[in-house]
Amino acid sequence: MVEVTKAILGSYFHAPTYGEITYVQNALILMNTQGVIESILVPGDEDYQQTVEEHRQNNQLKELRKDQYLLPGFIDTHIHAPQWPQAGIALDAPLNIWLDEHSFPLEAKYADVGFAREVYTDLVQQLLARGTTTALYFGTIHKESNLELVKISAEMGQRALVGKVVMDDKEGNPEFYRDESTEVALRETEEFIQEVREYGKNVPQGVYPVVMPRFVPSCTDEALDGLGKLAKKYDTHVHTHCSEGQWEHDFVKERFGKTDTETLRDFGLFGEKSVMAHSNFINDNDAGIYVETGTAVAHCPISNVYFANSVIPIKHLKELEVQIGLGTDISGGFSPSLYDNIKQAVMSSRQLEEGVDTNLPQSERGVPNSRISVAEAFYLATTGGGEALDLPLGLIEPGYTGDFQIVDTQIAGHELPSFNVFDEPEYLLQRILYLSTQANIQEVYVQGRRVHKR
Amino acid sequence: MVEVTKAILGSYFHAPTYGEITYVQNALILMNTQGVIESILVPGDEDYQQTVEEHRQNNQLKELRKDQYLLPGFIDTHIHAPQWPQAGIALDAPLNIWLDEHSFPLEAKYADVGFAREVYTDLVQQLLARGTTTALYFGTIHKESNLELVKISAEMGQRALVGKVVMDDKEGNPEFYRDESTEVALRETEEFIQEVREYGKNVPQGVYPVVMPRFVPSCTDEALDGLGKLAKKYDTHVHTHCSEGQWEHDFVKERFGKTDTETLRDFGLFGEKSVMAHSNFINDNDAGIYVETGTAVAHCPISNVYFANSVIPIKHLKELEVQIGLGTDISGGFSPSLYDNIKQAVMSSRQLEEGVDTNLPQSERGVPNSRISVAEAFYLATTGGGEALDLPLGLIEPGYTGDFQIVDTQIAGHELPSFNVFDEPEYLLQRILYLSTQANIQEVYVQGRRVHKR
Repeated sequence: MVEVTKAILGSYFHAPTYGEITYVQNALILMNTQGVIESILVPGDEDYQQTVEEHRQNNQLKELRKDQYLLPGFIDTHIHAPQWPQAGIALDAPLNIWLDEHSFPLEAKYADVGFAREVYTDLVQQLLARGTTTALYFGTIHKESNLELVKISAEMGQRALVGKVVMDDKEGNPEFYRDESTEVALRETEEFIQEVREYGKNVPQGVYPVVMPRFVPSCTDEALDGLGKLAKKYDTHVHTHCSEGQWEHDFVKERFGKTDTETLRDFGLFGEKSVMAHSNFINDNDAGIYVETGTAVAHCPISNVYFANSVIPIKHLKELEVQIGLGTDISGGFSPSLYDNIKQAVMSSRQLEEGVDTNLPQSERGVPNSRISVAEAFYLATTGGGEALDLPLGLIEPGYTGDFQIVDTQIAGHELPSFNVFDEPEYLLQRILYLSTQANIQEVYVQGRRVHKR
Repeated sequence: MVEVTKAILGSYFHAPTYGEITYVQNALILMNTQGVIESILVPGDEDYQQTVEEHRQNNQLKELRKDQYLLPGFIDTHIHAPQWPQAGIALDAPLNIWLDEHSFPLEAKYADVGFAREVYTDLVQQLLARGTTTALYFGTIHKESNLELVKISAEMGQRALVGKVVMDDKEGNPEFYRDESTEVALRETEEFIQEVREYGKNVPQGVYPVVMPRFVPSCTDEALDGLGKLAKKYDTHVHTHCSEGQWEHDFVKERFGKTDTETLRDFGLFGEKSVMAHSNFINDNDAGIYVETGTAVAHCPISNVYFANSVIPIKHLKELEVQIGLGTDISGGFSPSLYDNIKQAVMSSRQLEEGVDTNLPQSERGVPNSRISVAEAFYLATTGGGEALDLPLGLIEPGYTGDFQIVDTQIAGHELPSFNVFDEPEYLLQRILYLSTQANIQEVYVQGRRVHKR
């Protein structure tokens, strides 16, 4: 395990307040031995120069070069790790074909831990290379392969939250890929929680077990009830899908006579450490339940284009003070990059505001006042992710973990445009978020340790 | 000027038929001294092996390696070259702020040919690196800087179609950035046509002058009429914006009592070599005018999200047999990559089909049967671009120009997922289009000459 970098000297962007960007120039960020930010000195502070010099002399200082900028590590609050081989595949097919002929047979292959190791090792590396320092992973039904994902993330230095997926309903799931029984599903979930907790004791950046029903339609009442009890017993994170598409939303109402949100809450699956993927169709009463329970939305804008039959009203939900993080939803979303999802979050909100159908008068086309800014989308990928997971992540401030990405805007062959126009910090960040690719991410740090170098 | 590569041996994808992908394995593509494809041999052809050997021995053979694939060069049918420094900037601002405080002051700077040279040299290189081998460029009002763009493209090996922008209406344009007078605008357009024609005689891949009113609202009737006559006199390409957003669409109807399409046609600006950017709001009668005149649409899906107040019904227009190419529309669109626009073309069509507003019943939300496939979007970026420009581009077939991009799916540090699942050619191309970045583009050829190497 590499050592903690004691100090980083550079200029950084982060978003302490929703919709506002803070830019700090030539800051000296000091981290403790646990890789947590202890203090930040800026030019003008009395001991700034001396402290810089001390760390320089002790070779404890990482200095950013010209054209390099520090951003918080991104937080992916919803990603199906086993679906990485399916990224970009068959998105033109209807959902049932996409699932039954692609996703489910693929996920079934993770009964083979060797296959899991191969895919998960590549995925974690690819996410780190794109600046994703924390990921909330959907696994498969296979306990051993999920443990493999936990260990691979831990060893590669990424902060991982992983769940053993529960899909026990014999009606709702294919015979070739479902839990053997409700009892086995619950027992293996409990064992998985205990084993990850034990293993995690020696993982500096942390690994976390997650209670994870696939979604209501794939689970029996007994399983949902049992998972709620396990979440309470072990105070774990909870993650599932909620009101993603029209079909799911209507199915749950039909089955329980109440919304997906009310159903999941009543099974004990809502709480401070609960994250619900998508949530496109929640109403204001549902949103109130998210707020009062501290449950967060994992917004997956690219995936939603293909599978959510709508655009989630992010601006409205933020006004209701719902916690919202950003997710790639591999492979419902094709891109493993949160940069791509930041852009799509902005674009989808514009399409919600403007509407789509040119045959309608402009006044009837969209939903006015729905757009979000790129600064707001950046908040979702950083600060919002930390809020969603209830962990000190996403900000560059004392008490937060040392999770960073160093973006170089002038990497040879991948230079961002720069002609001494629009060079205010605000525009600089816009350029980074809209135009940089993985090739511009020079280094990535998790919990103060460098985990990726270009 | 580098020499023509006589032969390329590799597997390629292209789209001779809308919506269908053709994959040819281990093809030997033979080019003549003009860089035009002369013949294509495939394994099994009588003289295949012998011809391969001959070119190998004469060092005239470019052989693709394992995991490398050949695609046609992409064709950007709408890009504002001077706005490259503005890419990704201020997209949260309203259109008037975006234009008056950003685009127009920026475009005004191209009175300085030195500034133009700096920006255009970078832009052409960046486009080639992303596989764009042909571009239809909006320039500025400045004849000299436009000529600079023509020469830079010619020297760097890109096929460029360039226009001197006409915006002569004193009401419709800011005093600091508009043509001195209608008469000067028309005279300089004619001089520009003559000078580019003369210069182009020695450019193997071709450079083309384009008649280019900015859009109807920025031009006087006299200018539009004069430009129509110049287009006819010199048989040039014509390029402008048509029915992009609600405001423009309504403004033209108000001013002329007919649609933007009818107006431009009546000024003599529609024809086989005419390309209209956006065209989101054209009706079926307008579409009929596009078809009967051979005028094409330049679809710019990313830009449309920000500035077109709608999604253009591409599937419907293709059913009406309108020619459609793809464009980046830098900087209304933030991305210089047609890969990104292929993805957004698919995503926007899905949002048109599904609709956006969760408060509406699903049946009233969108426009059924509007989605296009990634194969259809790929056609727009290649074959469709060739149709739009009325040039032999976008296909890998005898008689077409040797414009190629070599995509390497396993570049170190930028490997596309590959775990021996979903490895059919159809899925391989989907992965390339959805997941590859500039870093995966190993080499680019225009008219048989290599113009970019990673």
